[in-house]
Amino acid sequence: MARSVHRPATGALRRYLPILDWGRQYDRSALTSDSVAALIVTIMLIPQSLAYALLAGLPPEMGLYASILPLIAYAIFGTSRALAVGPVAVVSLLTAAAVGNLALPGTSDYIVAAIALAFLSGLMLLVMGLFRLGFIANFLSHPVIAGFITASGIIIAVSQLKHILGIDAGGHSLFALAGSLIAHLGETNMITLAIGASATAFLFWVRKGLKPAVIRLGLPARLADLLAKAGPVMAVVATTLVTWGLGLAERGVAIVGDVPSGLPPLTVPSFDLSLWSSLAGSAFIISIIGFVESISVAQTLAAKRRQRIQPDQELVGLGASNIASALSGGFPVTGGFSRSVVNFDAGAETPAAGAFTAIGITLAALFLTPLIFFLPKATLAATIIVAVLSLVDFSILKRTWAYSKADFIAVAATIALTLGLGVEAGVSAGVVLSILLYLYKTSRPHIAEVGLVPGTEHFRNINRHDVLTHPELVTLRLDENLYFANARYIEDYLLDRIGRGQPVKHVVLMCSAVNVIDLSALESLEDIDRRLADMGITLHLSEVKGPVMDRLARTHFLGSLSGQVFLSQYQAMRALAPVDDAPQGIAAQ
Amino acid sequence: MARSVHRPATGALRRYLPILDWGRQYDRSALTSDSVAALIVTIMLIPQSLAYALLAGLPPEMGLYASILPLIAYAIFGTSRALAVGPVAVVSLLTAAAVGNLALPGTSDYIVAAIALAFLSGLMLLVMGLFRLGFIANFLSHPVIAGFITASGIIIAVSQLKHILGIDAGGHSLFALAGSLIAHLGETNMITLAIGASATAFLFWVRKGLKPAVIRLGLPARLADLLAKAGPVMAVVATTLVTWGLGLAERGVAIVGDVPSGLPPLTVPSFDLSLWSSLAGSAFIISIIGFVESISVAQTLAAKRRQRIQPDQELVGLGASNIASALSGGFPVTGGFSRSVVNFDAGAETPAAGAFTAIGITLAALFLTPLIFFLPKATLAATIIVAVLSLVDFSILKRTWAYSKADFIAVAATIALTLGLGVEAGVSAGVVLSILLYLYKTSRPHIAEVGLVPGTEHFRNINRHDVLTHPELVTLRLDENLYFANARYIEDYLLDRIGRGQPVKHVVLMCSAVNVIDLSALESLEDIDRRLADMGITLHLSEVKGPVMDRLARTHFLGSLSGQVFLSQYQAMRALAPVDDAPQGIAAQ
Repeated sequence: MARSVHRPATGALRRYLPILDWGRQYDRSALTSDSVAALIVTIMLIPQSLAYALLAGLPPEMGLYASILPLIAYAIFGTSRALAVGPVAVVSLLTAAAVGNLALPGTSDYIVAAIALAFLSGLMLLVMGLFRLGFIANFLSHPVIAGFITASGIIIAVSQLKHILGIDAGGHSLFALAGSLIAHLGETNMITLAIGASATAFLFWVRKGLKPAVIRLGLPARLADLLAKAGPVMAVVATTLVTWGLGLAERGVAIVGDVPSGLPPLTVPSFDLSLWSSLAGSAFIISIIGFVESISVAQTLAAKRRQRIQPDQELVGLGASNIASALSGGFPVTGGFSRSVVNFDAGAETPAAGAFTAIGITLAALFLTPLIFFLPKATLAATIIVAVLSLVDFSILKRTWAYSKADFIAVAATIALTLGLGVEAGVSAGVVLSILLYLYKTSRPHIAEVGLVPGTEHFRNINRHDVLTHPELVTLRLDENLYFANARYIEDYLLDRIGRGQPVKHVVLMCSAVNVIDLSALESLEDIDRRLADMGITLHLSEVKGPVMDRLARTHFLGSLSGQVFLSQYQAMRALAPVDDAPQGIAAQ
Repeated sequence: MARSVHRPATGALRRYLPILDWGRQYDRSALTSDSVAALIVTIMLIPQSLAYALLAGLPPEMGLYASILPLIAYAIFGTSRALAVGPVAVVSLLTAAAVGNLALPGTSDYIVAAIALAFLSGLMLLVMGLFRLGFIANFLSHPVIAGFITASGIIIAVSQLKHILGIDAGGHSLFALAGSLIAHLGETNMITLAIGASATAFLFWVRKGLKPAVIRLGLPARLADLLAKAGPVMAVVATTLVTWGLGLAERGVAIVGDVPSGLPPLTVPSFDLSLWSSLAGSAFIISIIGFVESISVAQTLAAKRRQRIQPDQELVGLGASNIASALSGGFPVTGGFSRSVVNFDAGAETPAAGAFTAIGITLAALFLTPLIFFLPKATLAATIIVAVLSLVDFSILKRTWAYSKADFIAVAATIALTLGLGVEAGVSAGVVLSILLYLYKTSRPHIAEVGLVPGTEHFRNINRHDVLTHPELVTLRLDENLYFANARYIEDYLLDRIGRGQPVKHVVLMCSAVNVIDLSALESLEDIDRRLADMGITLHLSEVKGPVMDRLARTHFLGSLSGQVFLSQYQAMRALAPVDDAPQGIAAQ
């Protein structure tokens, strides 16, 4: 008995601590795979973490801090076996936009706000996970996400041009950025531009040309892949050496400079309520975007190995990561797409790979920081530009245009507003617009007049199929839930249709596509029934779904209805059309 | 040819000027009926217009002004033959709430803002009418309206208690009002209270007890009705005489005082953009609430005489009325419920009745204003209280509780927030909440596993009916549109259902209840198909609606789908279940 009392607790513990599951089966082979994956991800993550801190407007060491404890936290609480957590481009851009509204980059207020943002976003994710509110993320439709990511990629790339050019510029929308860049173009530092442009060109070549070149040299493809991942590190090493050797810092090349060595500092996030309330909206957006980005890569990778992800526990995992980031002087993090794919391809078997990556980054924070003193910011900007340009993909516009104008409008507005007004306005507008367009669509539903397909019990649209109908019987299939937004439309449509002078005796509403009838629609149906009764016409329903019928049975509606409710439309036709089943009396249409 | 070119113009003119239709058939009999109705409505409207101006915090003459030109404008542009336009309780309360945020009652800024509000609301209604945007009003569900009207009635009644008690008090929520009343309770003027209480008691008696009493005296029922309508006028005359005769104004009874005589002043509304932008939200709410209140009474009355209302032209009519109100020094107006019913019962046959009412009110504005100098405000408050208490009806809470918890939550929140935070917050919260609850409901749709009803071609839920199924075939009926908000849910549900170890070979998604598949859902379906294919399971669709199929046909989906699309589920079962139709191989469930 004691055991069975004990078990549920273990179940709950296991639900919230997936590490208890995979941890007990951890063996030497998993250790080897995870270590190799961790090494590759570490090499990739060092320049990325520095670069994304730069993108967020934060000191480079904060990028390293955001890549240590958050990874450990995710290893404990996360359910994906391949997800690599840390700073990512889009979330860093959102951080810059949110914190940039409150403080100037470089000030301590800016840093305090970025840390508070990570904490707040972590809390929100945790609460959503514990209360199983992950469905909120579903309101971000696929096209809206695609459009948002594309537009963000453009903004990020353009925002990094200032580092490539060695000038001061800023702004959160594309136009503000472009204007600011053009205004300062005359101040371009040619040496910085040379470094930035070569680094960018090199990194593009690493993506496209390196692998074939290496294979042509007769080296194995696996090595070529590894070299491609190490491209940014090579660029970092080369440009740092050049800058140091030629003394380019004195000639105006902006460098990373002094990065404090050491473990992440234990940090108490600000509990300033006015700061929290000004960050709340941004934290919510960051939480949702971060979650959506993370869960989609986690699910894709899990599916490849027939594993499953628990979305609600993922919220807990990402929440814990962000809280860990805030407590160790970092900024908002989430699961990164390319990084996770690399982790997966490199053979990561368990979340322990993330923990090992954290160890790698810790070593970097302890010992490598003096070596990056002369690292040009232009190199970091180049790694960002090359990484984010792969996010830019306008094909979603073509796909949505071909498939659904509503989706097209939502995605076009998301892209335009993200570019024009900034990331937060863009994504919010995309969500609100896709909801409004969906509601608009359902507020003017398709209503089909149907007849019997000869030789079957099946009913189809009289305008699309050769079907049998009866002049005294009008059957309308309502192709939408009946609810407040369309109750009046349906009422108007029906009374209009019946008023056409045909000698109708029975109207049947075929409800096979009606999954909800709310109170507004019920009152409309009562109204329709009353008005039809005034004209001597009876109203019937057919094919009412079980859950809808259960609900109607609790009201007076079924009692006061002038007609009946038929289980199937075929029964309705047999009962209401005078001649039993045979085509006489039933005219082919 | 000239004629046929000319006709469309006449058609458009007639659409926008319904007066061209009924005007040509106007005859002596209609004139008589309309005049009688106008006389009765005028008697009713004089005290109401003064009272609702008081409720809106405006000088009494503005109530008269709002009851002249707006009625003429509606007679020209409106489509209802019985609607009586003018100041109404709920819209006056909304006006007070909107304008009270910007200026103090009694100041000229307050008056300017009220006039601008009418103008802005008129413009919005006009634009909605011309662009056929009346559907926007459908997002106000029946329960939300019912809850809002009930809560508004309570707030209005409580807000008038200060006039009955003769004290100063204010506030836009129930708690603010109640607190303010209690704080000033010590200042109660006993004479005012005596007048107010007797007027209230008298008016309640007129509603309930007068008619039986008159009939008991042997007088005709029609006269009893007329006397009941004249109740407020009787109260006005009696209390004015008493106040004048006993010199009660000197003893602290608040009176209407000096009301300027004359025609409504031609007014140019303020075009101050900052004023417009602070009023825009309120003007929108007033437009929608006013339209909904007006259209529902107009439709109810039209249906009784087998007439039809054109909702989009009603927007034009109400828009013109509000613009007319603003141009003649009035405040927002709409079609009033009780007033329109009186107009209808009194025999109004055309909108001309409204124009005749306008003449009656003009005469009152020209000649009666000196007579109401001594009219106690308490009497006007009494007419308001008695009128609005009939709006209060909590039965909507019981109805929604029994029928649908989502509707209940929306209506309860609307009532609570209207009482607690004020009218604008209440109605906005009600609308947003009912949309969110609907989206939430559709984001977790009902999915039924179905089987064949023996002896038919009909498929029903295996948990509710005795149906035939086949072990290798799983048929799921998706009871909702497939769209972004539920795409992931459906994906998870399906993969979960299939993963239960049954030797499934075919999955059929029965789409009879699917009216929309958006791009997010299409991508989910592609995903599901791919994953099922990995498990050696083919995915089929059945009963896909025409419009949905048209859309799918424009994509690669149908080409890449592992299975087929069947016109009917019956065909799908015959094709996929090995034994043709017969029950062997198909197990009864």
